[in-house]
Parts: sequence; C-alpha cells; structure tokens
Amino acid sequence: MKAVVYQGPMKVAVTEVPDAKIEQPLDAVIRITTTNICGSDLHMYEGRTSVENGKVLGHENMGVVEEVGPGVDRIKVGDRVSVPFNISCGCCENCNSGWTSFCLRTNPTEGMVGAAYGYANMGPYDGGQAEFLRVPYADFNLLQLPAGSQFENDFAMLSDIFPTGYHGTELAEVGPGDTVAVFGAGPVGLMAAHSAFLRGASQVFVVDKEKDRLNLAKSVDATPIDFAQGDPVEQIMQATKGKGVDRGVEAVGYQAHDPSGEEHPELVLDNLVKVVRATGAIGVVGVYVPEDPGAASAPAKEGRLGWDYGTFFSKGLRMGTGQAPVKRYNRQLRDLIIAGRATPGFIVSHELPLSQAPQGYDKFDRRVDGCTKVLLHPDR
Amino acid sequence: MKAVVYQGPMKVAVTEVPDAKIEQPLDAVIRITTTNICGSDLHMYEGRTSVENGKVLGHENMGVVEEVGPGVDRIKVGDRVSVPFNISCGCCENCNSGWTSFCLRTNPTEGMVGAAYGYANMGPYDGGQAEFLRVPYADFNLLQLPAGSQFENDFAMLSDIFPTGYHGTELAEVGPGDTVAVFGAGPVGLMAAHSAFLRGASQVFVVDKEKDRLNLAKSVDATPIDFAQGDPVEQIMQATKGKGVDRGVEAVGYQAHDPSGEEHPELVLDNLVKVVRATGAIGVVGVYVPEDPGAASAPAKEGRLGWDYGTFFSKGLRMGTGQAPVKRYNRQLRDLIIAGRATPGFIVSHELPLSQAPQGYDKFDRRVDGCTKVLLHPDR
Amino acid sequence: MKAVVYQGPMKVAVTEVPDAKIEQPLDAVIRITTTNICGSDLHMYEGRTSVENGKVLGHENMGVVEEVGPGVDRIKVGDRVSVPFNISCGCCENCNSGWTSFCLRTNPTEGMVGAAYGYANMGPYDGGQAEFLRVPYADFNLLQLPAGSQFENDFAMLSDIFPTGYHGTELAEVGPGDTVAVFGAGPVGLMAAHSAFLRGASQVFVVDKEKDRLNLAKSVDATPIDFAQGDPVEQIMQATKGKGVDRGVEAVGYQAHDPSGEEHPELVLDNLVKVVRATGAIGVVGVYVPEDPGAASAPAKEGRLGWDYGTFFSKGLRMGTGQAPVKRYNRQLRDLIIAGRATPGFIVSHELPLSQAPQGYDKFDRRVDGCTKVLLHPDR
Amino acid sequence: MKAVVYQGPMKVAVTEVPDAKIEQPLDAVIRITTTNICGSDLHMYEGRTSVENGKVLGHENMGVVEEVGPGVDRIKVGDRVSVPFNISCGCCENCNSGWTSFCLRTNPTEGMVGAAYGYANMGPYDGGQAEFLRVPYADFNLLQLPAGSQFENDFAMLSDIFPTGYHGTELAEVGPGDTVAVFGAGPVGLMAAHSAFLRGASQVFVVDKEKDRLNLAKSVDATPIDFAQGDPVEQIMQATKGKGVDRGVEAVGYQAHDPSGEEHPELVLDNLVKVVRATGAIGVVGVYVPEDPGAASAPAKEGRLGWDYGTFFSKGLRMGTGQAPVKRYNRQLRDLIIAGRATPGFIVSHELPLSQAPQGYDKFDRRVDGCTKVLLHPDR
Repeated sequence: MKAVVYQGPMKVAVTEVPDAKIEQPLDAVIRITTTNICGSDLHMYEGRTSVENGKVLGHENMGVVEEVGPGVDRIKVGDRVSVPFNISCGCCENCNSGWTSFCLRTNPTEGMVGAAYGYANMGPYDGGQAEFLRVPYADFNLLQLPAGSQFENDFAMLSDIFPTGYHGTELAEVGPGDTVAVFGAGPVGLMAAHSAFLRGASQVFVVDKEKDRLNLAKSVDATPIDFAQGDPVEQIMQATKGKGVDRGVEAVGYQAHDPSGEEHPELVLDNLVKVVRATGAIGVVGVYVPEDPGAASAPAKEGRLGWDYGTFFSKGLRMGTGQAPVKRYNRQLRDLIIAGRATPGFIVSHELPLSQAPQGYDKFDRRVDGCTKVLLHPDR
Repeated sequence: MKAVVYQGPMKVAVTEVPDAKIEQPLDAVIRITTTNICGSDLHMYEGRTSVENGKVLGHENMGVVEEVGPGVDRIKVGDRVSVPFNISCGCCENCNSGWTSFCLRTNPTEGMVGAAYGYANMGPYDGGQAEFLRVPYADFNLLQLPAGSQFENDFAMLSDIFPTGYHGTELAEVGPGDTVAVFGAGPVGLMAAHSAFLRGASQVFVVDKEKDRLNLAKSVDATPIDFAQGDPVEQIMQATKGKGVDRGVEAVGYQAHDPSGEEHPELVLDNLVKVVRATGAIGVVGVYVPEDPGAASAPAKEGRLGWDYGTFFSKGLRMGTGQAPVKRYNRQLRDLIIAGRATPGFIVSHELPLSQAPQGYDKFDRRVDGCTKVLLHPDR
Repeated sequence: MKAVVYQGPMKVAVTEVPDAKIEQPLDAVIRITTTNICGSDLHMYEGRTSVENGKVLGHENMGVVEEVGPGVDRIKVGDRVSVPFNISCGCCENCNSGWTSFCLRTNPTEGMVGAAYGYANMGPYDGGQAEFLRVPYADFNLLQLPAGSQFENDFAMLSDIFPTGYHGTELAEVGPGDTVAVFGAGPVGLMAAHSAFLRGASQVFVVDKEKDRLNLAKSVDATPIDFAQGDPVEQIMQATKGKGVDRGVEAVGYQAHDPSGEEHPELVLDNLVKVVRATGAIGVVGVYVPEDPGAASAPAKEGRLGWDYGTFFSKGLRMGTGQAPVKRYNRQLRDLIIAGRATPGFIVSHELPLSQAPQGYDKFDRRVDGCTKVLLHPDR
Repeated sequence: MKAVVYQGPMKVAVTEVPDAKIEQPLDAVIRITTTNICGSDLHMYEGRTSVENGKVLGHENMGVVEEVGPGVDRIKVGDRVSVPFNISCGCCENCNSGWTSFCLRTNPTEGMVGAAYGYANMGPYDGGQAEFLRVPYADFNLLQLPAGSQFENDFAMLSDIFPTGYHGTELAEVGPGDTVAVFGAGPVGLMAAHSAFLRGASQVFVVDKEKDRLNLAKSVDATPIDFAQGDPVEQIMQATKGKGVDRGVEAVGYQAHDPSGEEHPELVLDNLVKVVRATGAIGVVGVYVPEDPGAASAPAKEGRLGWDYGTFFSKGLRMGTGQAPVKRYNRQLRDLIIAGRATPGFIVSHELPLSQAPQGYDKFDRRVDGCTKVLLHPDR
C-alpha cells in the first residue's frame, strides 16, 4: 500500500510499504478516508525528534473498517469510524479511569505510558497517512460514525485536535459564564476556543500574532488578541477591567516565541499566571517535554522551566496538563457535530490526495498559502 | 407606596401600603424597576394556598438601591441590582454550602427552611410588586448589574426563572453532547431549554401542547414535542432511534394534565422515567407539595404520588429536586446576558405599568392574548 | 463439574453439569475458590422470580484463572481474581462511562441492560456456585488479587456486596464529616456502613430489628437503631438533636416490613425522606422492581410506590439508584483490604464446602444459626 | 490587654496594648482561650518578612464571644468559637464560591486578595495571641463549638492547620483507596496525613528527617520515610513496587532543604513529580512566594523556580495550590473531632500561658525540647 514515510529532516515521501494487516485477535484494519497532518507531526518533520527513518506517519485518522480480528465483536466491517490518536488497551488501571492517553500496556518502551500511531517514542505503531491502518483493541478504541461522507472534515477533527482542545477546557474547568484566555491560535487553540463556548463560556480571548488564525478565532465568536500589537496580558486585563480571566488554556507549548521571534519556553506559563484571576484554573495541552536538546538554556534542555511559581501559589491557581484522552470526549463531540452545534472543520485550509502529502507538509511547516490545517484523502 | 395586594381568590388590587423601610442593620430598600408575575403567583391568585389577604405579592424583582442599613458595606445606594427570590442569611450551614433556597434562619415558620418575598408559607416578607422592596441581608443577597437600563428584560429573568430553569439542568447533570427532554414549555421549561444549550446539549426536546410556547422553544433551537399530537414518550423515542435521552427536566409540577385536561400528578414523572435512558439523570424544578387538599386521590392529598419507581430503580436513574438556589447561578447567567450569549427575555410577552397588575394576572391566568410572561414596571 | 442448581422453589441441589469452557476468544475459565450466597439469591430460591429450573446459581465469585481464550492478553493462567457480578463488554457507551452494571451489549434479553452470572433475567450466563466459571470479556472484567489465600473472606466481598454497599454511599454523596442513616443491616447495609466510615462519615446509624446484625453494625463503629424498640425516625432525630442526617442509604428493598411483619414497599423511602435533612442525598441499593406479582396492592404490582414525594421535593433532596458498577470501586476497595483499612469479611458467619450449599441456602433463608453470610468453597 | 507583639527579628514580647473592641457593626470581640504559634509565624519572627514592629501576632485562635456588634444576629455572646485564620467578607465573588482565603474585600493592600489576623501583608488586622481579638464579619467567619472545654486542643487545630492539611488532600484529590505521599512532617504535613486517612487513603507516606515528627506520623498510621536515610523517591518507589503514589501533598514550602541542610526551593516539587504516578494529582499547601529576597538564585528571588515541568506535563499531572479556605472544611472537621474520629491535637507538644510566649517562639524556632506545636492559653 501507499504511505507517507519519514526520510529524515524536512523530508517525507509517499512510498509503497507492506499492507496493514490483522496481527492480533482484537485488531481491525481501517481503509483511510481522511488523515490529517498535525502540528506535532512537524516536530518529527523538522528533525527534532528521534523518530526513525521509514516510520509511517499520521495519528489523526478516520475511515471505514476493512477487516476485523476474531476477537472483535462490536465493530463491524463497513463501519465508518474515527480513530483516536491514543492506542489504549481498555483494561489497565488508567484506561479504566478514563485516561486512555496514559495506557499502561500499549507502549512497550521502558518507562513510557501512552501510545500513538506513527509517532516518536509512542510505541512501534505505524501511522495512518496511508491507504490502510492497523488498529489494536479495535472494539475499545474505535468510534462509530454515521455511514456516508457527511461531516467528513468535521469528523476528521475527532481523532485528536478537537478532543485535545476540549481537554484544555476541561483541565481549565471552563463552565457556564466563565471568561477564558486561550494562548495560541493554532488548530488546538482554535478547538479550545470553540470548545470553551460549547461549555458555556461568556467570553474567550485567543492570543496569537498570525492574522489568518486570529480571523479564524473571530469567526467562532472569540475575541482576538494580537500580541504583535502589544502585551497580551495588558490587553486582556484592560478588556476585563483589571479582573483577569477565570480560566486559561495553554495551546502553544515549549516552543513559545516572543514577538521578536526568540524562543522562551516559560513565556506562556508566565502570561497565564498573570492573566488568570486568583482561584482560577489553567489547562495545558501545548506540549512540554522532559528533554529538549535544542533548548537555549541548560535547565530547559532538561525540561526545567523557571516560570513564576511564587505567584502561581499566591493566587491559589490550579493547573492540569498532558495529552488528551480522546475517548473521553469524542462521542459527545461527534454528537454535537451531527446536531450542527459544533463545526470544528472550520479550520481546514487544504485538502490533498495522499500523493501530495510532501507538499502538504511543506506548506504547513512554512505556514504559507494560508495553511492552517491539511487533510489528506488516500481515496481521492 | 403602591403595591399589588392579594385580596382573595382571583382578586389582586393595586393599593397604598406602608412604605418599605430599613428594619434591620443589614437591610436595603430597593426602588423596583421591573417585577414579574410568576407562574407560582397564580397558585396564590387562584386561591389554592393559605396566603393571607393583604399580602404584597411578587418575588421576581429588580431595581435600584434606594437606601441601605448601617451594616451594609458592599452594596451602595444607586446600584442597579437583581434580587434573588430566596431570602437567605448568608451564614447558616445551608447558605455556606450554596443552598440559599434552604436557608435555615430566614423563615421563622416552624419546620420550614427557605424564605421568599411575597409568598405563602415562605416567611413574613412582603413582595416586590410595589414601588419599593425591603431586602434583608442585602450585601449577601443582591446581585449588582451594570448601571442603566440595558438588558432590563433579560436581567429581569435573573431573580427566579432563569436560575430555576438552569437549576433543572444542573440537577439533571446536563453536559456537552447530551440530549435532553424538558417537560413543560412554560417560562421555567423554556429557561431550562435555553440553559441546556448553554451547557452544551446537542439536542433539547421540549414537551407541551400550547402552540405559542412550542414556537418559543423552537426559537431557541429546541425541538418541540406537541403531546396533543401523540404520546410524547413515543415521539422522543422515535426521534432518538429508541435510545431515549440522556437527561430529563421536569418543569410542570404536580398539576400536570393529560391531553384531555385531566390532572395526573404522577404523569410527568412517569414519562421521564420512560424517556430517560438507563444511568441518566432527572432534574425536577416543577413544584410538588407535601399537602394538596385539592388533589383527586387521598394519597395525592398528602403528597404521595404512585409513580413508576420500580423502573426508576431498574434503570439506575438519579433525580434531584427542589427550589433553585438563585445565587449559585445568577452571576454567571448575568455575564452570559451581558456577553450576548444568553437572551432569556425572549419569553416576555407583556410589559405593563404596576397599575395594570390586575389585568396582567388575569391574562396570564387565563393564558389569553399570547400571554407567556408579564413584566410590571412601577416606574413607567 | 459440580454445581449448585436451581430445582424449583426452596430447592437447590449440587449436581454434575457440563464443564465451564472457553466459548469466545475473550473468555476465561476460573477455578472457583470462594463463592457466596447472596441475599438476592434467596429471591430465586424462594420462587419469586422466573428463573428456569437447572440454572447454575452464584454471582459472588472469586478464584484462580484456569484457562484463557486467544484474545485475552492481560489476565494470565494462575492469576487469583475477583469476578464482578456484572458481566460487561468494556466498550459500549455505558461501560465507557463507568456504568458496567448497565452494559448495553451483554444481556441479549429484549429491553434489558446489564448482565450477571446465574441470575433471573440477567442473561444466559451460568453462575459460579460451581467448580468452574466461564467469564466473558475476561481482560476487562477480572480484578487481579495477590497470589495465595490471604484475605480470602475479605476479597470474597469484592464481587458484589462491598462495592454495592459502597455504591450506596457514593449515590448518597457521603463525604468527610457527614452523618449517615443506613436502613437495613443485612450484608449490603453493613457494607454501606463500613464504606461510609471509609469515606469519612462522622456518625453512621444502622436501622434494623435483628440483634445479631445490629451487633455487627456496632462492631464497625456504627450506631445501631432497633426499629422494634420504637420509630427509627424519631430515634435518629433525637440522636441528631432534631437536625436529621446528611445522607441516607436504602439497603432493604421493596420487601420492607414494619415491626409487625407486614410488607410496606414504600416504608423505607418514607423514613429516609423524613430523616435526611433538606438538601441531603439518598442512595438506593436495596432492590425495587418494575413488576412484582406478589405485591399487596395493584399499583405496587406494577412497581408504582406511593411514597412521600411532595416532602422529597420540598426538602430539595436528591436520590440515586440501581445496581452497582462493581468495577468502578473494586480495585480501590481491594487496596484498602490489603492495607488493613477495610475488613469486609467481618460479616461472614458460615463457610461450607460446595456440597453443603443446600444447607447454606436453608440456614440463610430462615436466618437461623446466626446466619449473616455464607461462603462456599468448592475446593475444600 | 496583654498581647504578643513583634519587636524585630528574633524578638517578641508580651506587652499591654489597647483593648480589642467593636469597630464595625458586624464585628465580634472574642476572649481568647487558646491561640497557637504557627510555623508561618516563625517567618515573621526570624525577620524574613516586612511585618512592622508592634504588630500583635497570632492567626490560630479560638475562644468565647465577649461582645457583638449591632449587625451580628447569628453568633451570641458566650458562644465558644473557632476563628478561621482567613478574614473574609462573605459576599464577594470568591467568598461566594467558597474561596474565603482569597476574599476580594478584606485586604485593603493594593493588588492583594485574602486577609488574616496578625500577619505580614495580610491586612491591618491584629492577631489573637492576646487576651481579646476583634473578628470582622463575625456571623460569617465564626464557627460555633460545643460549650465547655472539651476537645480544646483538637478544636485549636481548626483555625488553620487541620483545614490547611486537609486542603492539601483536597487539592490532591485524595479519595478512598489512594496511596499518598506527604512531603514534610511539620504540623501541616501531619494534618495532611491525618486528613488523607479520613478521606479513605489506603497508605500514606510522610517524608521528613526529624525523628520525633516521623514518630508522630507513625502514630496516626502513616508510613514514615526518613530522607536522611536515603533518597525519599527511591524509598517510596520501592515501597510501591515501582508504581509510585496516586497523590502527593507538598507541606514544606520554598525553604526546602536537602539532607545536607542546603536550601533548594524546587526540591520537593521535583520529588513530587517523580513519585506521583502519571495522571495523579498534587496539592501544594507549603508556602511559595513571589518575592524572596533571601533566596540563593536570582530567579528564585522573584519566585521563579526551575522545577521539572517537562516531566510534570509528560505524566499528565494536575496541581492545586494556595492558602486554605478554612471555612470550607472546619465544620465537618469539627464534627469528626466531636465524634472521636479525628484527633488533630496529637501534635501538641507544649501548652503555655500567654506570658511565656517568648519562650514558646524560641523553642519552636529552634525545634528543641521536642517542640512540634505550641499552644498559648491567655486565661491560664
């Protein structure tokens, strides 16, 4: 089958690889209809991870079930499904508690919990930027979708970024009436803003400096804050009459940049501590890493970030972090899409056939051509 | 001052009564700008309560602070405020726990907890269908509103029915993606439907037989279910492909009628048990009473309703009940109004000067002239 | 293999039946070391259910894994395990939400959700009062225990009644400092009392009229309330200086009797409504049924119980009901047993070899010989 | 009246000061029966704060109501009461939400939220290490206790450290069955350990290097971990078979020392990140400050601590922080004391008359004479 394969920094190619097939009794094989390029794929693309050459990429996958193993009795061949990026066993303590993003059994790497498709350090699983994908523990992992092709682009957001943005609002405890500051208007930040309104937020600020992304934020009722135009904390404090916001969401990660383009991994955390009112909560879904060889300072290379913890404590803030357990939210978000109340596909800028994946990576990485989100359709 | 006074069954009059004044150090006196007639005022109007002649009615009040007692240090003269219908002390165990609707100290009646303005059995407090209103424990009870007259009709819903409808969705545990059935499209049911969407519901069914009310439900995106056209349970089961809804809200109360007009106090509870799926939850904000001399059966006279409890248990359902603690929700709902995300005033059908209160009661009681909600403005 | 088989009212026998075996890829077969007789087994024993002759009884099972199907990869042969009484698939919407007691897939009976071993209407599954037991979806359902035989009697409570009693306290929202009234000092009521203290209750009243059971309640620090000595509501109101309790647990069910021995299915619900303070919560784990041909009144035959709903509403009470999702609690309760902080085996009065199961049923049913809980050991 | 007055670094004296008196309508004056020296009083005593000379110290107070203002109608003269260390207004948004530790109105200092008695930067309120104490908003703030002198030492813990330790377990989301690591066996850490068991923890590790404190931990069933004997993380990982603990509580603060006595403000946070399992939660009640002129590094002087945030995120951990809202817990904890289920007084080592306060400060500061907690009794 054809698949998008990593071939070293700044290089992916669509090549022939062995067909995905049933390997375990609980596996399914999915024929991919849509698979997205994720911002976190760019970490690998840019050569900043230890991912091996030849890895099939892609963890934002959906499609139609082609084949199931002998132990699969819920999912049927022909079902249209969304595939959560987390690969989870369904029966360990963490899966039982709803933390499929920290499955204790699917990642064989020593000391690691949580697995994913086509991703560095997340286990030996191929990705879904391909014609077919093997899905372990299919009955537990797969989410059924209505047959057909309706809502394809919206549903394509269910495998990762819509639940991830939503998870940010869950960790931030966003509830009806709350004001929220989302830092980062990339796909995850935009999904967090959309989710905050689904949970009843009264006002959502979205901080970024890219005009097209800020416009997308505005298109879903958020208040854009352009940090190129001035300190975002001051702008939000002014807009809230000095009160600050009830909740904050971090959707940038450790590669935060100041307006001049310099990297400051602690920058967004500091801004959140300033802008969230005392007793508020912060959800962090932008990625931070324990080891970052490319970091500017020695402590940051070890994941040690000197942010303003003293103020964090003084204000009695709470913070939740980590990869989203997609399965905890994807059914409900699917139902909101079907009911027409959620429209996460609004961020899609490009739809390409699988063969044009290299161009998709290139555009997305360089953020040219208004590229906010790229979908690949192996069947088109 | 002028006030709406109860003078016996089907008779209210606007008469002169002694001015509201500061009686305790923590009191405030409010100049009423808007005071609503509530569906529950009709219980008194129709003579089905023990309310005494001469009682000033009205528990849905808002206005401007005219005077404060010497112990009041938060609220200032001139503040525009919403007055929660619950009169609460702010320092008993129930108030401390957020249950201001069950304040242990403000109702001197033996065995009663919870007090309200101008209402039978809810303590010796005059109502606010008047030029002025005395508010006990003003710093604790009053909610500040932006100065001026903007959103007057929306804010007027904050004293009772918007929080009451919202409380129904809270008791029913409505969350993002949920389907909800609201029984009753009166003001409270409509507020519950509006609230369910604010909390992220994917679909909300509203059951009634009055066309104008069903149309109002539709105007806020709910799916109207006309029980005059057929069994509402069957209609909802069909619309949900046999699954039923995740959550149910009771907004009818013990005076439920079947399509023929016969009273069946257990009817709505039975329908909810049928239509809410196993493991779901039900919020009951329609009023049920421990003593109902007018009930058809001997058990119902004592508040004993023979509903389908066996099925309730078998389905593992949960149920929450009771008067809403307005203060738990009114600040957040106010902020949603200011942000333009909640528009509870959509139910208002009539605005009258105080002097026309008798006509307002009459229209509302007979449900003529498209009467869904009547607002009285003593200052117009 | 040998198994306890239902042979009609008041008759069980230990007979040879076909060996339990792997039927599906996700099955395991367990060699039973301990299997309990449950109070609900007596419903079948007494002939008050539609259970068919020849059914192997027993849903409170533990033992050692003898064999696993080809799709089982977590549980290993030789593992000592507790078997939750609920048979759940692990991947339906209810299982995903932690409601394994309402699994949508394992009970093939039309209109029924939730399955169990060896029980009327709970699916075609044989029970574990036998040498061996087939366990579907073994990786999801089974709880691992430390190897050996330590804590056998305590662990034997993990399959049903300890989690069931605990579920009562969860539904009743018992938290630190709360006062609690548990109605019924049978095994489930005693487990609820034990659980309430584990959750930090300050005082737990246990209501019954059997001296030996009240003594057991006292042995775990509960305050016994003997309803043969006077109205239990009055006793508790007096002990709480008129305040009532914060939380109530129903552990009796529809076959409640007054002191004279007459059956009143609504009796305990009425008492709970009286004794739980306004804004409190009630957990109902005693069984109520939608159809009860043996009931005294026509409504009760249809599960319609005329309890004091008017007061329930007036006090703003909440109520949760239904069969316990064992898996939600059994791991934590196991850990409390291992740590020596929970000792649920305190209720065991009799340990018998499987061959003496008929005597066990007889003693337990007649409540003679101080019989509170009977354990059967097929391997002794 | 006599009071303990700060007179510069390492110097407190019992001197005559003006009598506490009613200043506002909602005030009460309390005759102090017991007032404790708190570990945080030592920050002032050691001269590391900006507290002014002449300040009356003491925020852990209890006593009997001597006089009430004209707006006080719940609390009566003669009531025995516990005084929460937080001074809160009872009607701001934070007080309404249960966050009395972040009252928006009682601290007049620009930019500060939350007030306390006799403490640097916490508002202009005198402390209670004195014969009498003025209590603002008395009806809201005071907790009634049973008359008499029973449980005096246990009740004395209700004003601060018992609720503070409990708050650590609340922020850490400790629930039944959990394993917990508490860092710090000072009074707050010991209260956290005691609280963790009240909430159902199965095992609680307490980390310290002081033998007497570790013995106190052991006396309430905790597992002592002596970090002078080896890396506490390794010791706990070994005791949990490599799994780590479910929950962690920080009860040390920014003045954490390694075994050699060197200060490392990030040390405990790093250890917690290592020892709490993925998806777990951490409650921080040890104090961290935004400005610490005495810190060793430039970032730490500004409250910027370079702890292992990358691992914190990778493990999906949650963290809650800040001063405890005493009122949220003190009623329930009082009831547990009365019921004999909580015995927080176990940490008291010294009871002195007020006149010996200087000796008490000295012993506690130098940790000599087995000094773990000092109580002052002005009336003895």
